[in-house]
Amino acid sequence: MITQKLFFTPKISASHIDEAYEALREEMKSSKVGYYTLPDGDMVDKIESFIKDKELNTKKLKNVAVIGIGGSSLGTRAVDTLLSHTSDRNDKKLIFLENVDPIEIENNLKNIEFDESIFIVISKSGSTVETISHLKHLIDYFKIDIKSEKFRFRFVTITDENSPLDAFSKEFGLDSFYIPQNVGGRFSVFSAVGLLPLSLLGYDIRKLLEGAKEIRESFFAKNEDLLVQKAHCYVTQSKRAPINVLFSYAGAFNAFNDWYVQLWGESLGKVNEIGEHCGMTPVGLIGSIDQHSFLQLLIEGPRDKTVTMIKVKDFQKDLKIPNISLKYLEKTDFVNGITFNDLINAQCDATMQSIIKQGISVDLIEIKRVEEKSVGYLIFYYELLTSLCGHFLGINTYDQPGVELGKNILKEKFAK
Amino acid sequence: MITQKLFFTPKISASHIDEAYEALREEMKSSKVGYYTLPDGDMVDKIESFIKDKELNTKKLKNVAVIGIGGSSLGTRAVDTLLSHTSDRNDKKLIFLENVDPIEIENNLKNIEFDESIFIVISKSGSTVETISHLKHLIDYFKIDIKSEKFRFRFVTITDENSPLDAFSKEFGLDSFYIPQNVGGRFSVFSAVGLLPLSLLGYDIRKLLEGAKEIRESFFAKNEDLLVQKAHCYVTQSKRAPINVLFSYAGAFNAFNDWYVQLWGESLGKVNEIGEHCGMTPVGLIGSIDQHSFLQLLIEGPRDKTVTMIKVKDFQKDLKIPNISLKYLEKTDFVNGITFNDLINAQCDATMQSIIKQGISVDLIEIKRVEEKSVGYLIFYYELLTSLCGHFLGINTYDQPGVELGKNILKEKFAK
Repeated sequence: MITQKLFFTPKISASHIDEAYEALREEMKSSKVGYYTLPDGDMVDKIESFIKDKELNTKKLKNVAVIGIGGSSLGTRAVDTLLSHTSDRNDKKLIFLENVDPIEIENNLKNIEFDESIFIVISKSGSTVETISHLKHLIDYFKIDIKSEKFRFRFVTITDENSPLDAFSKEFGLDSFYIPQNVGGRFSVFSAVGLLPLSLLGYDIRKLLEGAKEIRESFFAKNEDLLVQKAHCYVTQSKRAPINVLFSYAGAFNAFNDWYVQLWGESLGKVNEIGEHCGMTPVGLIGSIDQHSFLQLLIEGPRDKTVTMIKVKDFQKDLKIPNISLKYLEKTDFVNGITFNDLINAQCDATMQSIIKQGISVDLIEIKRVEEKSVGYLIFYYELLTSLCGHFLGINTYDQPGVELGKNILKEKFAK
Repeated sequence: MITQKLFFTPKISASHIDEAYEALREEMKSSKVGYYTLPDGDMVDKIESFIKDKELNTKKLKNVAVIGIGGSSLGTRAVDTLLSHTSDRNDKKLIFLENVDPIEIENNLKNIEFDESIFIVISKSGSTVETISHLKHLIDYFKIDIKSEKFRFRFVTITDENSPLDAFSKEFGLDSFYIPQNVGGRFSVFSAVGLLPLSLLGYDIRKLLEGAKEIRESFFAKNEDLLVQKAHCYVTQSKRAPINVLFSYAGAFNAFNDWYVQLWGESLGKVNEIGEHCGMTPVGLIGSIDQHSFLQLLIEGPRDKTVTMIKVKDFQKDLKIPNISLKYLEKTDFVNGITFNDLINAQCDATMQSIIKQGISVDLIEIKRVEEKSVGYLIFYYELLTSLCGHFLGINTYDQPGVELGKNILKEKFAK
């Protein structure tokens, strides 16, 4: 389904590899970190009964609105963008009320009928200022009585148990789903945060979780040495090469790149035990487009980067470059008759070779087909990779203390 | 219209500032670098007569298709995304045939009627393999006779004089516009590359150029010391802080960020005169969204970044956070009654202060309103900034030798 290759020589001993496996197993067993067990449990059943009870699986429901920012929206967007070409995707419109940009808010609500929509309010803390402001705006915009049946039917919340949003939700009788306390926003896509909207869009969320379980089982059976070696290599190089580039050769990876940037940046950008500023800067690129942009910097710029290439073997589209020779343009005829699928992959290979030639550490993730199961696998693969990097950096991968300062300054501004 | 502030102490002497002004003036005067004079000349007149002669300024033309990649598309996309909220924008659909991803190609051509469209084929070299492959696919897809009037009417080319695409264009009688030889793709948005599609979309391209001229005049009158100081600071810090973050507080800057990444990365990622790998890695962020993502890395991660904040003073939307207090959610009431415009800007200020507190070099660009003139100004500002950085780095800002290797490997693959 997914294979990986490392184009560098790993320098980690067998015992250190084993320690890394055990460190993550310990995180899982101690229940300190909850994302490992998200693929288990009965959340899928709960979501499916919820959808059935409310009869949301019909053409009458036209819009799925996610009100949430950061970890509350990036995962859903990533999966939907990756899978939107599949036949499972229904034609419901997915909108995000995320940023507090007034132009975006207006655009997003254009042509949205209240009675054809479901509004999923997502906030782990239950008091995210952007999200609650959107909630208030929706109440005002649609002139909703929050004590009405209409409100209870159309709004659902996803939050931590006993959060302010949970208390609100109970007070007004809304349906709600919980995010486990030990699951951070950026690791929450396999909780209701991702599964509820993705299920409403028609995706087979069981298969998504199957893929996640597959790599998890393989990892904890200690069959994923390449993954551990990769994390170790990128961490030990991180002082010299603090930038990690994810170069995905398919347009549909755009939102996945954004999800990766949050996961990587927010998890690994930390002060470690001895007070050092750690972390690696994630950069997401799309091939072949960014061959015409960032590639020059990769090839001739500072040697401060490592690169992961993502390649999709089978786009499931048999679209060919026609066997046409245009006068004066014969120079490009060398690709005539091949499929666009083969062209983009040949470009991926060629770019990768040109980067490897510079002595840059490169690895390749090859995905056979982009479908629910492989996407679930890929996401969980990246979560494991992030946990491994955090282990090697000696940091707390799962908190985000650095964002509090700005929030406090904001509050002080308005207190004045 | 646009103001800038530096939150660090510049360390460049008056004579070095003067040298920088003169270096860019010399580039302009010697005609080595052509983008400086793009806002002059008669290109706007040519484009306007072209549109008039072909009667393209009507409702009958529904689609503007740009066939081009990298510098041939990023600028147009950036400007259109920034300005799409303005009343000048007509309802023509803009599509890009850019990547060779087969899923994207299929999606892009859905619901596109040939007789309601204009196809602008853009390639500076005139032999970009992605672009010419798209051209062949369009010919096949719409079953076009390339000797027909229909082809001549619907297709137009923008390329270097005497390029293969120019020769093709002449052979089959297509209308065409030239990119001056001394203007690179990433600096070409004020040539026909950007002006033709943007004019077709209804934008006032004269105002766009007016804005560009305004900052150019001010610069060459030596009134832009802050700009020179900023370039100097970021370059002299670039060994310690090789990452430049552009943190834009408005969703519409998404594509502008991509344009900046190309401009910055491809211009400054170079081997300098003494064989050193130079360059700074551009990272584009959107506020407030990325407060919930990359910000943690900025605050607690390695001190290897400088940060530019972009703030829009007036979104021209008077949308307020309603004065509603929701039970248990009172914690967020501190923003009640203010506009979303003010909230996003207060978030920008708060985030900026929290970054400055870390001792990171920060500067702020404040835009009064996002409209044609200020966008033209901002783009030219960034082009000047890039030229200044190249000057201080002692590199050739305008070539891209690093991308050739991959192209050659690709050709060899298919030759086998």
